[in-house]
Amino acid sequence: MQYTQSQLLEKVSAAIEQMVCNPQPDGLYAPIRYALSLGGKRIRPVLMLHAYNIYKEDVDRIMSCAIALETYHNFTLLHDDVMDRAEVRRGRPCVHKVWDENTAILSGDAMLILAYRLLTEGRTADAEPSLLADAVGESDAVGRARALQTFTLATLGVCEGQQYDVEFERRDDVSEAEYMEMIRLKTSLLLACALKMGAELAGAPAADAEHLYEFGEKMGLAFQLQDDLLDVYGDPAVFGKKIGGDILCNKKTFMLINVLQLANEQQRAVLTRWLQQTDFDAEEKIRAVREIYDAVNIRQMCEQKIEQLFAESLRVLRAVDVPSERLQPLVDFAYRLMGRQS
Amino acid sequence: MQYTQSQLLEKVSAAIEQMVCNPQPDGLYAPIRYALSLGGKRIRPVLMLHAYNIYKEDVDRIMSCAIALETYHNFTLLHDDVMDRAEVRRGRPCVHKVWDENTAILSGDAMLILAYRLLTEGRTADAEPSLLADAVGESDAVGRARALQTFTLATLGVCEGQQYDVEFERRDDVSEAEYMEMIRLKTSLLLACALKMGAELAGAPAADAEHLYEFGEKMGLAFQLQDDLLDVYGDPAVFGKKIGGDILCNKKTFMLINVLQLANEQQRAVLTRWLQQTDFDAEEKIRAVREIYDAVNIRQMCEQKIEQLFAESLRVLRAVDVPSERLQPLVDFAYRLMGRQS
Repeated sequence: MQYTQSQLLEKVSAAIEQMVCNPQPDGLYAPIRYALSLGGKRIRPVLMLHAYNIYKEDVDRIMSCAIALETYHNFTLLHDDVMDRAEVRRGRPCVHKVWDENTAILSGDAMLILAYRLLTEGRTADAEPSLLADAVGESDAVGRARALQTFTLATLGVCEGQQYDVEFERRDDVSEAEYMEMIRLKTSLLLACALKMGAELAGAPAADAEHLYEFGEKMGLAFQLQDDLLDVYGDPAVFGKKIGGDILCNKKTFMLINVLQLANEQQRAVLTRWLQQTDFDAEEKIRAVREIYDAVNIRQMCEQKIEQLFAESLRVLRAVDVPSERLQPLVDFAYRLMGRQS
Repeated sequence: MQYTQSQLLEKVSAAIEQMVCNPQPDGLYAPIRYALSLGGKRIRPVLMLHAYNIYKEDVDRIMSCAIALETYHNFTLLHDDVMDRAEVRRGRPCVHKVWDENTAILSGDAMLILAYRLLTEGRTADAEPSLLADAVGESDAVGRARALQTFTLATLGVCEGQQYDVEFERRDDVSEAEYMEMIRLKTSLLLACALKMGAELAGAPAADAEHLYEFGEKMGLAFQLQDDLLDVYGDPAVFGKKIGGDILCNKKTFMLINVLQLANEQQRAVLTRWLQQTDFDAEEKIRAVREIYDAVNIRQMCEQKIEQLFAESLRVLRAVDVPSERLQPLVDFAYRLMGRQS
């Protein structure tokens, strides 16, 4: 059978709840339970299970790997929130606000180790090795080793992406290519990794695994650019965050980088003044910058880029060598991720 | 052949230097190179190689695992220094002082991933998979899987120990048993893990691996208690740190916990006053507290405990089922670690 996205989400949620037991000391594990209970769309584990489900039906078999990815992702959020001095995550106070920074650092470290434990042993901190571990046969071992390698490569890339993101804040000569590479590392890689791992765990042909990886990579880029776009042009009620956050902190997005290229001398002067001003009215800055964005038609340029990346992602997905109906859940997933009707 | 400690140290140092290449971004990897270049005694990788060398000669074969342990250990130092707001590590400024806290957090995260990469792939961030990985046969795979599990269990325990250490700072009813468990987790576990991994990687019998683990555990406890003792009674020139640090921050060590039990009413009153005082002359506090330590003979009590643990560690080491001369390098190591003549 082919599971729907909501069926897989339900399975993932149940598995995360089951995983969250009560080892000691509570001061270390309570923040981990809190972080994992904040919810979210569980995009990465669901993607992994979808990819596996193209080839195999027993998705429960790789649940520990799926949960590992979600545990890893939430670990990055914990540490990123400390580094960004963020206050709120998914509508609730960040771990370092509920507890403190040291707790967020240490519990985060433990989460990264737990992610590796789930991947390599198929169990969490307290539970006994699951049936999964015993059930793994010879051929599975190869798939698991490949998936582990894919995971390590991606997670190291995410660190690199985070480092570039930090460095770009202090630079004003970031190119479009550099920005795209940064969001590829920071956002796309883990989506691509989830899909590739799912395929590898299912013993899929290497070419298929690679196509699924590229599908995730392109989809992730389209998704991130759309997120940037919504930060400027979104409906606050739908977007869920305040509009204009990127403009206020001068984030070198695809749009800002290209506006600086496309603007005429006068527009660039206005923009540069706003970028350098440290004391300003937020609404006024957002309005002024958006005026220049509109004048150079950056919205259309960004939408075209999103369109192109999204189309490419679906094209490379169709290159996966299976009957096209096996890919339909991932097509649906991509449309839904982009907030579109498929 | 049986390698000496200094031969193994040389091999480890060379491997660490070789590992330290130049991937990008430099902002992420330079702090890692810096942390690993600070030196230290490389106790953990050397212990692992000694344990392996009891059974096998080709110690280079497991070098990536040895370096993984050192990488992991230095990751914990990086994050601990951030949490402790420390200034200096091995006579040089801490990573978060040379760069900043966010860098120390992120580069530390990458080091933990690199440690797992070394363990699971036998290579570092940039190098191609080493010959090691190719050379690993079927039987080795079992040993490596066991060693990986030993590593994960120990590193999770180290997180737990760090958490207890933090919690004990805020409590004044810490028992001797709780303190011993905390230092077991925080200090001993990784030494025990190094030895057990070495045995597992060599395909040693499980009972031997367990004895080596216990040897490391006891030796680690003896070493930590001796470190506590030297903090009060050591020669500053030899100890390498300022004397009295633990007294100044009211650290609930084996000695303080027992002094509070053994002191008479008057001594306890004096001690309690010093523990509660926030404004004091450092030298005066150290002198006053040490006077009570002397009055209840805590030094002898601590020395006896160290003696007992050290003797136990050597007894359990001798239970390893090999000709006793194979164990001599580890006996010598233990004596040297404790600063004694064997």
